[in-house]
Amino acid sequence: MEGTGITRLCQRNLLPTTNPSLTCRFFSDSVIHHNSFHNYNRNFPKFLVSATMEASFKPEEARVPAALPLPTPPVTKFKIALCQLSVTTDKERNIAHAQQAIEDAADKGAQLILLPEIWNSPYSNDSFPVYAEDIDAGGDASPSTRMLSEVSRSRKITIIGGSIPERSGDKLYNSCCVFGTDGKLLAKHRKIHLFDIDIPGKMTFKESRTLTAGERPTIVETEVGRIGIGICYDIRFQELAAIYAARGAHLLCYPGAFNMTTGPLHWELLQRARAADCQLYVATCSPARDGGSSYVAWGHSTLVGPFGEVLVTTEHEETTLIAEIDYSVIEQRRTYLPFQKQRRGDLYQLVDVDRLNSTGAK
Amino acid sequence: MEGTGITRLCQRNLLPTTNPSLTCRFFSDSVIHHNSFHNYNRNFPKFLVSATMEASFKPEEARVPAALPLPTPPVTKFKIALCQLSVTTDKERNIAHAQQAIEDAADKGAQLILLPEIWNSPYSNDSFPVYAEDIDAGGDASPSTRMLSEVSRSRKITIIGGSIPERSGDKLYNSCCVFGTDGKLLAKHRKIHLFDIDIPGKMTFKESRTLTAGERPTIVETEVGRIGIGICYDIRFQELAAIYAARGAHLLCYPGAFNMTTGPLHWELLQRARAADCQLYVATCSPARDGGSSYVAWGHSTLVGPFGEVLVTTEHEETTLIAEIDYSVIEQRRTYLPFQKQRRGDLYQLVDVDRLNSTGAK
Repeated sequence: MEGTGITRLCQRNLLPTTNPSLTCRFFSDSVIHHNSFHNYNRNFPKFLVSATMEASFKPEEARVPAALPLPTPPVTKFKIALCQLSVTTDKERNIAHAQQAIEDAADKGAQLILLPEIWNSPYSNDSFPVYAEDIDAGGDASPSTRMLSEVSRSRKITIIGGSIPERSGDKLYNSCCVFGTDGKLLAKHRKIHLFDIDIPGKMTFKESRTLTAGERPTIVETEVGRIGIGICYDIRFQELAAIYAARGAHLLCYPGAFNMTTGPLHWELLQRARAADCQLYVATCSPARDGGSSYVAWGHSTLVGPFGEVLVTTEHEETTLIAEIDYSVIEQRRTYLPFQKQRRGDLYQLVDVDRLNSTGAK
Repeated sequence: MEGTGITRLCQRNLLPTTNPSLTCRFFSDSVIHHNSFHNYNRNFPKFLVSATMEASFKPEEARVPAALPLPTPPVTKFKIALCQLSVTTDKERNIAHAQQAIEDAADKGAQLILLPEIWNSPYSNDSFPVYAEDIDAGGDASPSTRMLSEVSRSRKITIIGGSIPERSGDKLYNSCCVFGTDGKLLAKHRKIHLFDIDIPGKMTFKESRTLTAGERPTIVETEVGRIGIGICYDIRFQELAAIYAARGAHLLCYPGAFNMTTGPLHWELLQRARAADCQLYVATCSPARDGGSSYVAWGHSTLVGPFGEVLVTTEHEETTLIAEIDYSVIEQRRTYLPFQKQRRGDLYQLVDVDRLNSTGAK
């Protein structure tokens, strides 16, 4: 029953194709108008239930600052590629290999490419400092992002560059670079929630041994929509996804390398939950599995639609998934289940501290 | 690990019973302080990472007021019964039938019984006013809750009484009554988020035609732990679950009647997501399916553990599921994945307006 019929209904293009160039500025046209003044009228008295509900429930206050309307994206339908790459200890090979996968995906029409978490290096605390690059310095100091910049420009595609270990001064980060179709760096997300877990006998890892956490959420305007970025463990924190949704994201991209313990438990669950709760697209990209590495990735890169439905997924081998995203579906789903008018701002409020400070709003 | 340090600060019982009318003011301690006092150093000396992270990330501020420690429950292990009842147009039969199911479950050792949403009445806007009972008046005015009270006392069990249509003055509610082992009404939850959806050609329903929404969250101390209550559509709002978790809930109970459209799409997903994100138990109970009714329930009552794992579930026929809950697993899971120390209160804050107003705490 999933997806049948429902998706068909929305053939009209709800999201036209002009792009008032955007810096993600936050305005507050937040007064939500409600429908629903339908009185019940059977054998019992008329209740003006909805009217009083709306006044007192303050749905617009469930997000602070108030949620932004979904912006009109530059394109409504486009192809995304999830490059589930094999990763070796040879950085040069990893870079050339990633470039080849990106170019192949571009040849197949992908306008947006998502790479895995830590695709230029083995995933280990020992490797991070060795493979780290100075992204801000660029050039020879960051051959991985130089390649991403070049290929995004030459192929006129948007790249969410998975993540690589970044060196900045005396600190290391797990960082995702986003490149626009002109090859320019649009944004850099440093993993906000470091992966520090300890499941005895199953999986213990402490990124905080070597890495520093990022300082803020990252949402970026691209030629394929407004995209919120998280890296792997970031997906566990629903607040981040909800903040991005309230900032008008169409799509959340999570490069991630869940493992053989947490992968089967939670990888798909979390993607579907974020998509269904926030009513937007969620794309993830994992490295392919290497059973011989110290950290064995679960794989299973996936694209999820705004009803929480898996649109395309895979197993753990190296592959590139190409799938179509249709942003008009987002508005449709939000019409079906109008959470944004039903939240109880009189009872709970999610505060986006960063945006609140940026806007000076309430 | 929950409750170490930060959360211990708040030992007083913040759970409210009165509601001083509220204004939720936002303070703007908003300058974002970043972590990052840990210098990278080659052979990995010990960093005081966690200490500095916690100081600047303010994980305790991700919940406002700060999350309460998980309380010690009166029992660690016990049996819960989910009574997936068939519901007819005959209220007397429905009550007698529910009583029988409860007594059978008690005979099998269940200490906690969960009933379905709207178990004494067909689920329809036409039926709600006809079957509604005046719960506060009690006695003959509410035969359904009188039965629940009597059987909870006689069997010394706790009952989360699903829900029934409640009449209170000129309003109707969808209400869940919780009875303790002495037969006393411990709490009454009125559905906070009314089920108003419109999926054309699939499912359209507007509870707000007849019902009024409840005014506040409901969390209740019972002899089988601290339990947060939601009814059906309430489960779609992750904020409610997170608020309950921050109030120290061990278990969330959602009587619910998802339908043949939203059931396969979202019923299990939402239960698992709430459990995994909040790291607590989630129990749901649906009516059995009646293909001849105007609203066809999905069934699939389920118990989910604090890793988001389905512990027991069923199809759509009438049945009673009995399963064991072990609250010690909650602390274990929270030690494995210590979200409560990893949330970024410097970036996002979930405000429990009701509790904030009740406590006067920040």
